[in-house]
Amino acid sequence: MSLSALVVKHQATIDAAVAANRDRTFHAHWPEPPSGKIYGETANEDGLKAFQAQLNTPFGEWGKGNAESEGSFVGEEVSPYGFELGITYPALSVDTLMTRASDAQTAWQALPVAERAAVLVEALERGAKRFFEIGYATMHTTGQGFVMAFQSSGPHGFDRALEAIAMGYAAQQAFASSVAWAKPMGKFSVEIEKRYRVVPKGIDLVIGCSTFPVWNSTPGIFAGLVTGNSVIVKPHPGAIYPIAIVVEELRRTLADLGLDPNICQLAVDTVEKPITMDLLQHPAVKIVDYTGGPSFGRLVEEACFTSGKVVFTEKAGVNSVIIDSMDDADRALGNLAFSLSLYAGQMCTAPQNIYIPASGVNVGDETWSVEQVAAKLKEHVDAHVLNEKSGAGTVGAIQSQATLNRIAEAKALGLPVVRDSAAVAHPGFDASRSATPLILMATTDEEDITTREWFGPISFIIPTGSFDEAVALVAKSVREHGALTTLIYSTDEKKMDLAEQAIVSAGAPVAFNFNSFVWVNQSAAFSDFHGTGANPAGNATFADWSFVTNRYNVIGVRTQK
Amino acid sequence: MSLSALVVKHQATIDAAVAANRDRTFHAHWPEPPSGKIYGETANEDGLKAFQAQLNTPFGEWGKGNAESEGSFVGEEVSPYGFELGITYPALSVDTLMTRASDAQTAWQALPVAERAAVLVEALERGAKRFFEIGYATMHTTGQGFVMAFQSSGPHGFDRALEAIAMGYAAQQAFASSVAWAKPMGKFSVEIEKRYRVVPKGIDLVIGCSTFPVWNSTPGIFAGLVTGNSVIVKPHPGAIYPIAIVVEELRRTLADLGLDPNICQLAVDTVEKPITMDLLQHPAVKIVDYTGGPSFGRLVEEACFTSGKVVFTEKAGVNSVIIDSMDDADRALGNLAFSLSLYAGQMCTAPQNIYIPASGVNVGDETWSVEQVAAKLKEHVDAHVLNEKSGAGTVGAIQSQATLNRIAEAKALGLPVVRDSAAVAHPGFDASRSATPLILMATTDEEDITTREWFGPISFIIPTGSFDEAVALVAKSVREHGALTTLIYSTDEKKMDLAEQAIVSAGAPVAFNFNSFVWVNQSAAFSDFHGTGANPAGNATFADWSFVTNRYNVIGVRTQK
Repeated sequence: MSLSALVVKHQATIDAAVAANRDRTFHAHWPEPPSGKIYGETANEDGLKAFQAQLNTPFGEWGKGNAESEGSFVGEEVSPYGFELGITYPALSVDTLMTRASDAQTAWQALPVAERAAVLVEALERGAKRFFEIGYATMHTTGQGFVMAFQSSGPHGFDRALEAIAMGYAAQQAFASSVAWAKPMGKFSVEIEKRYRVVPKGIDLVIGCSTFPVWNSTPGIFAGLVTGNSVIVKPHPGAIYPIAIVVEELRRTLADLGLDPNICQLAVDTVEKPITMDLLQHPAVKIVDYTGGPSFGRLVEEACFTSGKVVFTEKAGVNSVIIDSMDDADRALGNLAFSLSLYAGQMCTAPQNIYIPASGVNVGDETWSVEQVAAKLKEHVDAHVLNEKSGAGTVGAIQSQATLNRIAEAKALGLPVVRDSAAVAHPGFDASRSATPLILMATTDEEDITTREWFGPISFIIPTGSFDEAVALVAKSVREHGALTTLIYSTDEKKMDLAEQAIVSAGAPVAFNFNSFVWVNQSAAFSDFHGTGANPAGNATFADWSFVTNRYNVIGVRTQK
Repeated sequence: MSLSALVVKHQATIDAAVAANRDRTFHAHWPEPPSGKIYGETANEDGLKAFQAQLNTPFGEWGKGNAESEGSFVGEEVSPYGFELGITYPALSVDTLMTRASDAQTAWQALPVAERAAVLVEALERGAKRFFEIGYATMHTTGQGFVMAFQSSGPHGFDRALEAIAMGYAAQQAFASSVAWAKPMGKFSVEIEKRYRVVPKGIDLVIGCSTFPVWNSTPGIFAGLVTGNSVIVKPHPGAIYPIAIVVEELRRTLADLGLDPNICQLAVDTVEKPITMDLLQHPAVKIVDYTGGPSFGRLVEEACFTSGKVVFTEKAGVNSVIIDSMDDADRALGNLAFSLSLYAGQMCTAPQNIYIPASGVNVGDETWSVEQVAAKLKEHVDAHVLNEKSGAGTVGAIQSQATLNRIAEAKALGLPVVRDSAAVAHPGFDASRSATPLILMATTDEEDITTREWFGPISFIIPTGSFDEAVALVAKSVREHGALTTLIYSTDEKKMDLAEQAIVSAGAPVAFNFNSFVWVNQSAAFSDFHGTGANPAGNATFADWSFVTNRYNVIGVRTQK
């Protein structure tokens, strides 16, 4: 298929995504249910088979005997459900990756943006045919339950990619690419032919994380590509497989269209011999996308600042909740309990600190004590995680031993326990590593504890002197430690307004009174800006203008005829 | 007038500017001729009178006895035409400036962008009534000839301000500010009311330069303001008066509309007691716009990078010309000669290095030697600068003694002189400091000389082995030393294409065959992107998306009803 035919094929998809970005309405190009009715009756079975066939063998093409000559093969992924994946990937050298990326970029950047966008949508459509395999690959690298793994790395992650493509497309289409400029000079006019060339900054390095290897990486990958850059994808060594499928489909699509597949490459390393900093410090790398822990994130930011590279980060912060008053405690606390339980809190958006005025919480006509609220919250967490049918899938498995250690550390703090953490059974996966939410009581004097990020299923209930004090503590925490989300339960519009002004000014988003089928730790492509870029949790937003416009320059060529 | 009425009043102006930014067509909201027919028969006389009345007295309101209690008054501007201006300005402390800016910002950022934009256009329209005073103020701080001073600080500088307002307006209007989001869930849908709040990053510090105190500062000032930031304008101590008028009109407009005038403040210092770094390092400053020399510019960039501030720089580079072939040598070299002569080359866009293949230049059917081209170029420079009527106005005066010293330094290099520099007489200003273009012959071996920026009326003719070598040298120079402009004369399309690919890839714009009424050192608002941001000459572009989108964040507020 020619590139111009491809543009026609995908224009409606791109136009709809551009419109959704503008209007912020609900939009989903790929439906989120992992349903056979949508994706084909055998899709689940086929995906599972593909996953099983991939285990213990070199990845993709290489597994079929098409190994490239360069580099050794490495791989050390272990399922949090208790087995080694045994998949290996070619470990190309930094120099090989950079040379190939640089060679590939010239032709790619010369394409009109409409063609680049169409190629990328084509790759996503091909990748979408492997959503179930991606789901199993995600489940068995991150520990997410299957449904969540399917959604986060499949439809949701792909929608975030499409959002980035559409933003980059709209930004580049917002100026004429050429003009016959005529300046009136009285009786005649001066005429200049002007062209405006979009020039990508250079190689874009996308550094992934272990818990959301697709969802957190597709925005940077596709924003980098649509703006004409070559992209090198460097996944976390513990979660390569899911994004390797996306990269593979991109490379196949590029090759099938007669383009250089090295426009997007996979860089693989091991925990023992990391290459991320070598990649990052290579002078050809001009853009870095990073998702992951704050301490390494700060090193990444500093290295980029000092060398003048553009950097987009999504690190992590301390997410807070304030419970002031509720119409319906069961709906509100049921909603919050689900956010604490889902994937055992291993989300950068999951709540950690729950502030409750010590004077109590208005629930309809009643006033509930902090203890009553805490007890009801525990009850709802129990209901979610101990549910025989859905509990294990909701909680999933724990990605990293470090998170399990962190739970032990939290237990050892000696704080009063509202709800203790325990393992859940994952039938068929006896060796899985799991943990349900641990909820502790803390005080405002224990800021040294509560202002740390306790990544995982760990939260604190913190009584405060007043609602205003709670708001002040949350705003301070956002400013000093960052946050991806905040959640307020209040029926008092004045209090809501006060909280909104303080928290938005501090740089965090606010959710009010979530109580059904939408959770504070979820962020919808095309509608919710994920990350504000305005607090220490990160400088990037999926996907605002800056997320795409900082990846290229516009350079003018003027010709007098 | 209410803010909503103001929006109606200026909407057509803003819409036309938004359209011009998109289409890149010729657009000028304020006509460039300093003509009484356009600006009123007495406009010139009135402006001159206002200028003369301002001399030797505290600036503006303060000169009328409205001195504020804080701070002392300072001022040390000297006209390059040979007299002290004797104007003083209140020197507020850094803390006072910051407190006022922070206090003013909350209400300003809460306005809808349409109202902010309308207020800013109103201020520009008021300021435009003082174009002639601004022209004289610019002439007698920068040394520009009057017509150029009028145009650069008046219509052109104000059009760049309007361009920035329109870009910021378009960027912020590109997303819905609220939406009733509804996610279909089968038989029902989940509904969330979402609002998207534009939150400015913080105080925007705009650091001006001595040669273009308005044109180079209005983009940052108005980009900062339209995106909701408080702005502190810190002019060069040698060129305060022109931009002080703009700030004064902004403050009056704000006050007349019932808004806090401290949304935009003037920060004044002296060469002996500079405050720029104290301002820049204040934690409330989150954005810095800088125009000026590269060495201080690098300090500004480093200070911003290490403290996580957003910085927009326009420093300077080494601008190159290649002469390969010409249809009409007189028109081409006359054009180039004017670019060398205008304001004695004191423009960041003025050509410096002129590469000519040693094998000669095709002119129609002839081949001219390097010496012939050089002689013709000298002839045209002479014609421009020695013209009895227009010569002195074209060359203007030399802003800084350092530039005069630099000419002496260039003369002492011992290179062959194509054209010597001399003073021009400015009738009525016997003590003026002036210099016509110095043109030297250099070789490709003298890169240590020619790759330095020789700011002022200093250029080098450099024979090269071939056209290709010239292109390679220019591309290398752009990469290593930056450039704001390049200019190529060639009638060979293959050579033009080769030059374009190499130079655009290196990050500089290209102009081809300029030969009438448009000059490489001119950059038209709404059409030409000034600065590419893609080479060491600076990271900013007047005005692309990044120039406005990096000044604010969008923060979401979600409410479930």
